[in-house]
Amino acid sequence: MLSGGIGGARFLLGLRELGHEVTVIGNTGDDLTILGLRICPDLDTVMYTLGGGISAERGWGREAESFRVREELTGYAESITSAADLVPSWFGLGDLDLATHLLRAEWLRRGVPLSEVTERLCERWRPGVRLLPATDSPVETHVDLVDGRRVHFQEWWVRLQAEVAATGFEVVGASSSAPAPGVVEALNDADLIVLPPSNPVVSVGVILAVPGIATAVRNAAAPVIGLSPIVGGAPVRGMADACLSAIGVPTSAAAVAHHYGSRSAGGLIDGWLVDEADAEAVAAVTGGGIRCLAVPLMMTDLAATAAMASAAIGLADEVRR
Amino acid sequence: MLSGGIGGARFLLGLRELGHEVTVIGNTGDDLTILGLRICPDLDTVMYTLGGGISAERGWGREAESFRVREELTGYAESITSAADLVPSWFGLGDLDLATHLLRAEWLRRGVPLSEVTERLCERWRPGVRLLPATDSPVETHVDLVDGRRVHFQEWWVRLQAEVAATGFEVVGASSSAPAPGVVEALNDADLIVLPPSNPVVSVGVILAVPGIATAVRNAAAPVIGLSPIVGGAPVRGMADACLSAIGVPTSAAAVAHHYGSRSAGGLIDGWLVDEADAEAVAAVTGGGIRCLAVPLMMTDLAATAAMASAAIGLADEVRR
Repeated sequence: MLSGGIGGARFLLGLRELGHEVTVIGNTGDDLTILGLRICPDLDTVMYTLGGGISAERGWGREAESFRVREELTGYAESITSAADLVPSWFGLGDLDLATHLLRAEWLRRGVPLSEVTERLCERWRPGVRLLPATDSPVETHVDLVDGRRVHFQEWWVRLQAEVAATGFEVVGASSSAPAPGVVEALNDADLIVLPPSNPVVSVGVILAVPGIATAVRNAAAPVIGLSPIVGGAPVRGMADACLSAIGVPTSAAAVAHHYGSRSAGGLIDGWLVDEADAEAVAAVTGGGIRCLAVPLMMTDLAATAAMASAAIGLADEVRR
Repeated sequence: MLSGGIGGARFLLGLRELGHEVTVIGNTGDDLTILGLRICPDLDTVMYTLGGGISAERGWGREAESFRVREELTGYAESITSAADLVPSWFGLGDLDLATHLLRAEWLRRGVPLSEVTERLCERWRPGVRLLPATDSPVETHVDLVDGRRVHFQEWWVRLQAEVAATGFEVVGASSSAPAPGVVEALNDADLIVLPPSNPVVSVGVILAVPGIATAVRNAAAPVIGLSPIVGGAPVRGMADACLSAIGVPTSAAAVAHHYGSRSAGGLIDGWLVDEADAEAVAAVTGGGIRCLAVPLMMTDLAATAAMASAAIGLADEVRR
């Protein structure tokens, strides 16, 4: 499975219920460095969610989190100009979360690749899946804004709440990056490749921007099944509409399927699940050479999420026939 | 004033009461790097004590401190072997304190010298004195133990509580270090140079190990007055006896004065204050060419500490006559 943060992580909770062996290829384009801490929001969201440490309320960061270091850094930033430059006021850095970033940053400084760092962190969190970063090279999604600014994805997403329109994205570092060890092998050896209802542009899209990954998906022996992150013309969570607009894709379940494209025509997916609210999209998607089924796609609880994962597996069986 | 941590910082509270302009040359031999954080215990103790942020109970670290990051790191260290190696279990790393180390480490990585970093941090803490590190070069006091081990000073002091005897100290990095900007100038321009009741070996001794500082003290126009950290044959606080033993100096007020030596005979001090409990030492010290006076040397409260500072200034006046 290719995964972003919250949506992918929640879907994984359902998929994990079915008892299959799962490898997760996580987005690293949201990663950022603050005060020497290396923060990997999507990898951590998957790790904490599956490891039982996630904040249920926020969907990111740790349960029972506190923000004492963050508040103290704010105290410094308010008194010292040169400190204010180093401490982005909009980034929520929790105390428990910080321990993860301290360890990761130290291992990275000592030359341990991100994939190995992630494996080490998972020794504690035991997520029940194999979690791989898409790449060990640092890649960062930067956003071009309509007002001419270019900002880190996190600044656009968290600070600006995607309210200033984006005109494009660049995955800085992607062209010279390579898939992390195990990524291409996992895609080659998979029985099923899933694109969960993660953001198709800045989550799945960034994973696919790492040279070699899209090709491995296209050439994989396994069926590739996607689940629409758009239900009834709006993203289920997050601001995927703002990302889709920026690349000229309408915010609809069918448009996202066409954006991925049919593998039979050089695209990436064989099958596509839309929500029952988008049943009228089935014909258009099928017309584009993609098997399509309308099923409930709201991850309201674990059973509903597991049912979505079952539906993806069922659609893969249809594709194989 | 040349200063270590707690003893020097408390003495400074009294000295500050007298309204003089004070430059503090702080020991950096206790400094250590943990998880990329650069920790300067003595500089921080001075800064927090004079800035009103120190823990009154512990004498080091911050008031109203919490240890959530530390506990979380312990959680990692307990589950992951390679994490345990990075997180010394014996070092108390507070959440508020951590903000200081994060900022300092980031500035240092960006090439800002420690003296400039210290000045920036003091923009917030406003200690009312000018605080300089002895040197901008990283120096670290390592301790040779009787069992053959060599450990960082902090490990000996905090983890082993100096219970394993030391056979010697090396200030690693000292020989290639230079005084921080302003240090030699402050000694040259001083009206009075004070050696407070800090540890003569691992605090004052380490400052003096930076090439150029001892010479500047010896050649200074101002009187040099020291206050005995040993009262009644025992250190007032800390484990100075364990340090003195290691270098063959008896734990007595007179022996420490002789260790520093009279400036008139190529040593470092002109005057020495001993506690009234050590009045019998006055003759021996005076015999070594050092003016000596017995006064109360217990820093029981601010008034008592200010009286000690006054006595040092008074002794300097005697030396000048």
